[in-house]
Amino acid sequence: MSELRAPDIAHLGPIELFTPKPQESVDFFTEMMGMEVEHRHGQSVYLRGWDDYQRWSLKLTEAARAGMGYCGLRTWSDEALERRVALIEAAGLGRGWEDSGDDGIGRAFHFQDPEGHRFKLYSEVERYVKPVPTDFKNVHGKQPNRAVAVKRFDHLNILAGDVRAQRDFATGVLGYREYERIELNDGTLGGSWLSVTIAAHELIYTRDAYAAEGAHGRLHHAAFWVDTREECLRAADIWIENEVYVEFAPSKHNVAQGFFLYGYEPGGNRVEVTSGGRLVYAPDEPCVIWTESDRAKGQAWHNPTVHTFHTYGTPVFEPRQSA
Amino acid sequence: MSELRAPDIAHLGPIELFTPKPQESVDFFTEMMGMEVEHRHGQSVYLRGWDDYQRWSLKLTEAARAGMGYCGLRTWSDEALERRVALIEAAGLGRGWEDSGDDGIGRAFHFQDPEGHRFKLYSEVERYVKPVPTDFKNVHGKQPNRAVAVKRFDHLNILAGDVRAQRDFATGVLGYREYERIELNDGTLGGSWLSVTIAAHELIYTRDAYAAEGAHGRLHHAAFWVDTREECLRAADIWIENEVYVEFAPSKHNVAQGFFLYGYEPGGNRVEVTSGGRLVYAPDEPCVIWTESDRAKGQAWHNPTVHTFHTYGTPVFEPRQSA
Amino acid sequence: MSELRAPDIAHLGPIELFTPKPQESVDFFTEMMGMEVEHRHGQSVYLRGWDDYQRWSLKLTEAARAGMGYCGLRTWSDEALERRVALIEAAGLGRGWEDSGDDGIGRAFHFQDPEGHRFKLYSEVERYVKPVPTDFKNVHGKQPNRAVAVKRFDHLNILAGDVRAQRDFATGVLGYREYERIELNDGTLGGSWLSVTIAAHELIYTRDAYAAEGAHGRLHHAAFWVDTREECLRAADIWIENEVYVEFAPSKHNVAQGFFLYGYEPGGNRVEVTSGGRLVYAPDEPCVIWTESDRAKGQAWHNPTVHTFHTYGTPVFEPRQSA
Amino acid sequence: MSELRAPDIAHLGPIELFTPKPQESVDFFTEMMGMEVEHRHGQSVYLRGWDDYQRWSLKLTEAARAGMGYCGLRTWSDEALERRVALIEAAGLGRGWEDSGDDGIGRAFHFQDPEGHRFKLYSEVERYVKPVPTDFKNVHGKQPNRAVAVKRFDHLNILAGDVRAQRDFATGVLGYREYERIELNDGTLGGSWLSVTIAAHELIYTRDAYAAEGAHGRLHHAAFWVDTREECLRAADIWIENEVYVEFAPSKHNVAQGFFLYGYEPGGNRVEVTSGGRLVYAPDEPCVIWTESDRAKGQAWHNPTVHTFHTYGTPVFEPRQSA
Repeated sequence: MSELRAPDIAHLGPIELFTPKPQESVDFFTEMMGMEVEHRHGQSVYLRGWDDYQRWSLKLTEAARAGMGYCGLRTWSDEALERRVALIEAAGLGRGWEDSGDDGIGRAFHFQDPEGHRFKLYSEVERYVKPVPTDFKNVHGKQPNRAVAVKRFDHLNILAGDVRAQRDFATGVLGYREYERIELNDGTLGGSWLSVTIAAHELIYTRDAYAAEGAHGRLHHAAFWVDTREECLRAADIWIENEVYVEFAPSKHNVAQGFFLYGYEPGGNRVEVTSGGRLVYAPDEPCVIWTESDRAKGQAWHNPTVHTFHTYGTPVFEPRQSA
Repeated sequence: MSELRAPDIAHLGPIELFTPKPQESVDFFTEMMGMEVEHRHGQSVYLRGWDDYQRWSLKLTEAARAGMGYCGLRTWSDEALERRVALIEAAGLGRGWEDSGDDGIGRAFHFQDPEGHRFKLYSEVERYVKPVPTDFKNVHGKQPNRAVAVKRFDHLNILAGDVRAQRDFATGVLGYREYERIELNDGTLGGSWLSVTIAAHELIYTRDAYAAEGAHGRLHHAAFWVDTREECLRAADIWIENEVYVEFAPSKHNVAQGFFLYGYEPGGNRVEVTSGGRLVYAPDEPCVIWTESDRAKGQAWHNPTVHTFHTYGTPVFEPRQSA
Repeated sequence: MSELRAPDIAHLGPIELFTPKPQESVDFFTEMMGMEVEHRHGQSVYLRGWDDYQRWSLKLTEAARAGMGYCGLRTWSDEALERRVALIEAAGLGRGWEDSGDDGIGRAFHFQDPEGHRFKLYSEVERYVKPVPTDFKNVHGKQPNRAVAVKRFDHLNILAGDVRAQRDFATGVLGYREYERIELNDGTLGGSWLSVTIAAHELIYTRDAYAAEGAHGRLHHAAFWVDTREECLRAADIWIENEVYVEFAPSKHNVAQGFFLYGYEPGGNRVEVTSGGRLVYAPDEPCVIWTESDRAKGQAWHNPTVHTFHTYGTPVFEPRQSA
Repeated sequence: MSELRAPDIAHLGPIELFTPKPQESVDFFTEMMGMEVEHRHGQSVYLRGWDDYQRWSLKLTEAARAGMGYCGLRTWSDEALERRVALIEAAGLGRGWEDSGDDGIGRAFHFQDPEGHRFKLYSEVERYVKPVPTDFKNVHGKQPNRAVAVKRFDHLNILAGDVRAQRDFATGVLGYREYERIELNDGTLGGSWLSVTIAAHELIYTRDAYAAEGAHGRLHHAAFWVDTREECLRAADIWIENEVYVEFAPSKHNVAQGFFLYGYEPGGNRVEVTSGGRLVYAPDEPCVIWTESDRAKGQAWHNPTVHTFHTYGTPVFEPRQSA
């Protein structure tokens, strides 16, 4: 309980995504998602949603294959940072300090989860400064009035061969709380929804369907926030009209109660436009357990889950056909 | 910063409201707000929103005058409870322990803020048990399918003669963070928006317009949550059709970005149906300062604030007319 | 064009549905859809949505098998009624006059479309009188504050073996305009969307998948209106929590742009909760043609159409398995 | 009744607005409202909403003073056009034929209502051709993904000294139906809501507060459509952030049940972003009468009407101060 009371991690982000089609990916995030390019550096483009408080929340980096580069985790303080580094080192998953976490981010500690996904832990970061004040003094930027207009990077879903191991690392070492999980009939976990705040999910691990065949360290999706379900519906209109690949039309998840729209950005990474989700105020909220038979009913309104939603991730993995 | 990192208070609630018209008030909260009576005890009726995790979140107690009886504050643990009690005692504002905080609530420490509003601090509470499970396993109750159908008690706004003193108590002794405040031209505070989570506001103090004339310890409003702005609009339809007094038609606050509908329940207490509001993820989010000239623009979309919103509270105070 | 200029039919409704489970069906339409029983007569129960201007819009009649009893069509005047009767008689599809179309409906002419679905044409009908006036003087009833709270019967979709023949009857004899249709690769029509107003669809014919095997005169669905998409989403929550069979979770049709939720009432009839849909103001709006390849993309946001949506209707038809 | 059955007018539009600040007005309608410039001609710029079926629906013309140039009215056919011209001529309000009603519009008959507002009656018009087809085959254009993104010109509200005279002209000569009106205590009309379709209002006359002082032929507002109330709320955010003058924050009218947002475009004309509104299906729907005491309650949710809403119009009229 003391871990829960005093989370050392404040929130998730920024996130780096790899893309083999950098220009198309930048176009997607600016023209379709309504984000703006904050700056460019080397082979990377740094973007922001209009209400991100940091200078940027998404880094797109050219790479041979799609996937996640790293995900940042900001701590509440330098002391919190040191405390978690010690725990990570003890778990044998540290990869060392960087003087700069990334542009605008202070020194950062680089580590990986047991599956090998990369993270950076940091406490200092530059805030975005709105060029011209508006009447909306508590909004960090200005509505771009363009396309989906996502406000900020919201949450991350990554795939793992052994969800339980990641979950144990996230709760035991990083200090996350687990609000919901899927328990499969064979006793393994199908997924785990983790948070350090009252938000229903910030970090999600779900089972990689191709783990047994060698898939490893893959991304399921990065989610970006809009304030209303109506904006998710409107986002679907915009995507369809502009030939964005819509994988899963807007609907509601039972787990976490999030409203969603899923598609693939041109580089291949799955992107979600999300809104809603339950809030967890109770300090002793029991973890909600979803069974296979629960999941067989589909999403919240019994709509069947699109098949690729259970199999596709980045880097793309092509399982060999059985002989 | 350490206070911020380790909030000892998890959330606000339940709340007790006094009403001189107990039956009418119960009817309002059940028939109009869609809450249900969980049980009755003595002169009090205990009600719940359908997604409150506790057995009840609102206690209506018959009294000569409307107003707030007390507001509960749940801590993360017994240790957190003891820690805060020590600080409150040191501030000279403790009123002693009760064996039972109220029905279903464990032992509680009774205290008041500097203005004299009553609070109870507790760590143990009984959870509500859904009589029949539904597919929505992460929802604490079942939609009543009735009228406004508020989910839960959300936040509290109380009036004070000296907002700064209450704010200092809430941040210094209780461990709240101040996310936004109004600074008047004379240097006093017009209001302070406080939270222990990423939610934009949980505890709000605003200036009592009649403080100089003797008004004291009054309630501005108790707010109940719905998930969408559309539900606030629909709530307004329902209230008007059923002759509930609507004081302030649905619109958006600039402060905290909450969408609102305000009316008076039959006992006279102001009630809000609320949705939305910004989320504060940054550990070092600066407090947003609103000036008198900002406030002169009205609410978020420049609609003028209804006059009584600045003056009315419960118990009702009738300032004497100047000769 | 003159037919278009001077529609003799004002609108569709009321509708009679047959149900083998009358009590369960009445409970569904009152407790889940939020309609109210206006009166009972013989083996029938007459219900209304809260903004139906007629006394009732839905008649539930006990019968061995589910399906549509009849659908009413109100004309603009007695002259319009006589004019259309003459055309129907000329088409050989009249079935004669009734002194009373049904409770509160004046004399009516009974006819069938070429497939055999029953209709009643009438011009006089009793209006509903709101028992107690409310501030909403242009609303015909009072919000029931209960469950889905549909406002009114909105549109009808019936199945046919030969969609083209029904369409030609509806446009040529009844005076409907065809706004959209599906043209299959074999040259037959998969569906036709017809209206006498600017509303995108009032009367819909779609192909009965089992026509070749003998299915005949079946109902696809009866649709009931709510004002917002958010209310469709909320309806899905309510249905799931109360174990109503949800066939097709909320989403948007490409054809007519209607937002939908589909389920089966206990008697077996498919029911839609609908909102939105395009408005057709142009007097010379060309009919939109959807092809098989268009339809293969699924609904508006590329979500796959649930299989039973193409096959299920009432009365339920069980095709014989091939040997 | 025969007039009602066979409306000769199909719909309202396009509209010409005069503006003393043509560039600023064009910028407002493109950058804020999300319309696009279809073409320019002389001192005029022709714009369209993304779902207007005609090439354009708004013509902005440079002029010394703001106000309405003319409003088009499209008939169902040439015969309908001739029929109405004869009635208008008989009423002594015709102003003669033009070979071209305006760019893309066929020959048109120019007339004025009794107050002197200009109209053009026409039957032939060019349709907009979508440059690139999209999956949304029944949408006339493509979402601009920019700012408010209004779909089309929706309705017109003009001021008059004698509302009853205009109403009688609109119903008796043009064939409109009156769905709602305001009857003042002195027996005069405060406003009249007129339509030729099931839409609650297309043409509105309201009383010019300064008629007795000489105001004449003024515009109250031109309304542009969005599909949801959420888009009206979002429009208000966009306007405030970009310093558009918001006169009346989003709320709901009791009359016609339309959801609204009102502001002034840079040239001074009042513009509405509107959604919703009741649908009138009954051929014999009685006209709803609103009294002064009804109106004293404010808009639908009892929010007070902004004072200028009753007085401001274009051209701007400055009543002389009493001595």
